[in-house]
Amino acid sequence: MRHLLSTADLSVDEATELLDEAERFEQALTGREVRKLPTLRGRTVMTVFYENSTRTRVSFEVAGKWMSADVINVSASSSSVGKGESLRDTVKTLHAAGADALIVRHPASGAAHQIAEWTATESGGPAVINAGDGMHEHPTQALLDALTLRQRLGSLQGRRIAIVGDILHSRVARSNAHLLSTLGAEVVLVAPQTLLPVGVEQWPVLVSHDLDAELAAVDAVMMLRVQAERMTGGFFPSAREYSVRFGLNERRMGLLADDAVVLHPGPMLRGMEIGYSVADSPRATVLEQVRNGVHVRMAVLFRLLVGTDSSGAQ
Amino acid sequence: MRHLLSTADLSVDEATELLDEAERFEQALTGREVRKLPTLRGRTVMTVFYENSTRTRVSFEVAGKWMSADVINVSASSSSVGKGESLRDTVKTLHAAGADALIVRHPASGAAHQIAEWTATESGGPAVINAGDGMHEHPTQALLDALTLRQRLGSLQGRRIAIVGDILHSRVARSNAHLLSTLGAEVVLVAPQTLLPVGVEQWPVLVSHDLDAELAAVDAVMMLRVQAERMTGGFFPSAREYSVRFGLNERRMGLLADDAVVLHPGPMLRGMEIGYSVADSPRATVLEQVRNGVHVRMAVLFRLLVGTDSSGAQ
Amino acid sequence: MRHLLSTADLSVDEATELLDEAERFEQALTGREVRKLPTLRGRTVMTVFYENSTRTRVSFEVAGKWMSADVINVSASSSSVGKGESLRDTVKTLHAAGADALIVRHPASGAAHQIAEWTATESGGPAVINAGDGMHEHPTQALLDALTLRQRLGSLQGRRIAIVGDILHSRVARSNAHLLSTLGAEVVLVAPQTLLPVGVEQWPVLVSHDLDAELAAVDAVMMLRVQAERMTGGFFPSAREYSVRFGLNERRMGLLADDAVVLHPGPMLRGMEIGYSVADSPRATVLEQVRNGVHVRMAVLFRLLVGTDSSGAQ
Repeated sequence: MRHLLSTADLSVDEATELLDEAERFEQALTGREVRKLPTLRGRTVMTVFYENSTRTRVSFEVAGKWMSADVINVSASSSSVGKGESLRDTVKTLHAAGADALIVRHPASGAAHQIAEWTATESGGPAVINAGDGMHEHPTQALLDALTLRQRLGSLQGRRIAIVGDILHSRVARSNAHLLSTLGAEVVLVAPQTLLPVGVEQWPVLVSHDLDAELAAVDAVMMLRVQAERMTGGFFPSAREYSVRFGLNERRMGLLADDAVVLHPGPMLRGMEIGYSVADSPRATVLEQVRNGVHVRMAVLFRLLVGTDSSGAQ
Repeated sequence: MRHLLSTADLSVDEATELLDEAERFEQALTGREVRKLPTLRGRTVMTVFYENSTRTRVSFEVAGKWMSADVINVSASSSSVGKGESLRDTVKTLHAAGADALIVRHPASGAAHQIAEWTATESGGPAVINAGDGMHEHPTQALLDALTLRQRLGSLQGRRIAIVGDILHSRVARSNAHLLSTLGAEVVLVAPQTLLPVGVEQWPVLVSHDLDAELAAVDAVMMLRVQAERMTGGFFPSAREYSVRFGLNERRMGLLADDAVVLHPGPMLRGMEIGYSVADSPRATVLEQVRNGVHVRMAVLFRLLVGTDSSGAQ
Repeated sequence: MRHLLSTADLSVDEATELLDEAERFEQALTGREVRKLPTLRGRTVMTVFYENSTRTRVSFEVAGKWMSADVINVSASSSSVGKGESLRDTVKTLHAAGADALIVRHPASGAAHQIAEWTATESGGPAVINAGDGMHEHPTQALLDALTLRQRLGSLQGRRIAIVGDILHSRVARSNAHLLSTLGAEVVLVAPQTLLPVGVEQWPVLVSHDLDAELAAVDAVMMLRVQAERMTGGFFPSAREYSVRFGLNERRMGLLADDAVVLHPGPMLRGMEIGYSVADSPRATVLEQVRNGVHVRMAVLFRLLVGTDSSGAQ
């Protein structure tokens, strides 16, 4: 692995190794007062965020620092973009300034892939990690979701997982659909027709428009943030309609099997796509997802920058 | 001590121990070229600022880094707030992402207290440090003021200290009124009636409206930043009136005893609440306060995260 | 050396030593996976930027972190400026909060020099590094340019170097004119009369208005970013006119000697002052400049904070 751009690129083995690695980091750190490993000492990691995201940036920053990397934050508002520099020149500059890894969030789908091409050099170029590119992919989110599901359900093999709501605008849904399928789960997208992307019939998923009908049979429900800022025009459901038809409220929790779990990538709009108390249920995994996010990102940075797994195998 | 939310919570012993600890850090570092202790290695400290403050954020960041903590800055402008996430979910997320301590500045009075409740878990939750909550408290500011006074005056016991100006909007005044009284000083608030808070008669202080009448008898004068942005409407004095009646100008400096000192928490508006040259007088302690701020914040982080004093006692 | 404020202050020996030091750092780090030296452990370096600049701030941050300094970023948007504090009080505060070095970018010419005066104390005060002050100087940029030229051309002695375009608004041009002359090069400024500063006849340079006429005879061409935001009014050439007369397009590359090189400080406006493909030519040194920038800034921080060269000589 040179980059992490898309979950569609990951084989079962690669994905499983990343999850195993994340758990090794979790075991190495959990319960310790001193959470610091020398693993990436002397490596320089830059977060390059063209969209705001506390959650993802902080998670990567913690992951890097816990492995003793030098972490440098670059945000669009302070970047040379305002001076007319191209994205290509900006990222090549950041590499020349010492970046071993570029963690990129960008509003354009495909940006991370482009950046990996642009910064490739004969001697290698930096590792590029896609931290969210437009409506395309957010692979570390899918990995942390998969890890959370594996910890709660034992294995993903044969499990049925519903991804619910605004699939169209969701890079989280796209990355998860691929990864969870790769790991052996059956994925059902539950959404109104207008919130499904063109070409969804090529995805390795089932499609449903009826949330109530799906809940009894699933092992997990993954709710998505409603991207209301993108849902303008009569084409899309209103906020109220969305909440009524696709919100996981208290009544719908009752339709789930007793051991089914509820995921949400955050930030949550309680009362909209998820009920106020639902998010605090012991079956909701929201904070476990956040905690696993740090370990998954440690695993990804480690694999890309050091290249072996921590057990010593290449 | 689990959190530092308010100076009203501090006993004489706790406050004194924090000041002693701060002085131990000062002695360990002053005059050294290499200012770095391993004390908080592997601990993760996040500053979470919903209001801008270079001064306080930098001071905490220096304090954390000098003790080898991993320090991560989160500011409101880059937070998930814009996406509709609740403050409760944001801080729980930051804790799940690895924060051992949350240093919080927020415009709402009581925010830090709420955050400490929200993030409490069975195994403990993060330490919460109030770095300013609305018009309520700013306890590390009061501690650094107390340390500066102790160093200048020898002891606070029986000393008379005037806090002057916009008491109403000042968390600095509130935190100092409690702490300085706890430490044995007599506090006089000097302000117009309209800039005193409701309920001030329950504070452990004297009240005066006449600055000139107070100056001869005090050991220290603490000037406050004028929060002009909050002083709109005919209810409040005009800028000119404020400056004339409550500004510490050169003439008023002449009314002070020779060994009396002048404090200001900064940022100063020279020519408004403090005379241009007054702030540069050897009796002004402005920069000592800043320097003490780092040591006080080291002491607070150390006590909350390690729990013993540096001499080894629990 | 106590500060680095202007290249006009640097003697041949001082400048040469800094470039030699930068190359020692380059040799110590290049090709290493672990880029981390203990050189500045326990030193606190603050970047204080009143203008945005990813490029320069990141370069200094990397330089500091690779030498194990504690690096703290302060930007104008989050500073106390909004609260009316003077620049003098802000920088004295940052020094009191622990800064051993202040790296300052400010829109006012002379700001860095003022700050060095204001923060001077009996025991020394912080080292001040000018990271760009208005239209005045940007000395580390000139040093990295000189290092790049020395590496490409062998020596600067007797070399002829054209600096092209918006000289008037360019601190890069000013710093380079002084430094390159000091190092023995012959500098030709190529610009329209309206984009030359008053008093240019006192600079140690030649002046030309005709780019085509100069190209055959130069060893290097240094293009400048067009500061269109400052070029308003009929007094200045239009963007199209500027590009036609002073842009280094593909045709003009053909006029250069085969071994002549092309520099640009970035951010580049491709198609404006530099042709799209020109910037990617093997004779363009843009990314070498960026890489050298980190090593030059390491050398500067090291000389100012430790004071000896890394070979041990005082």
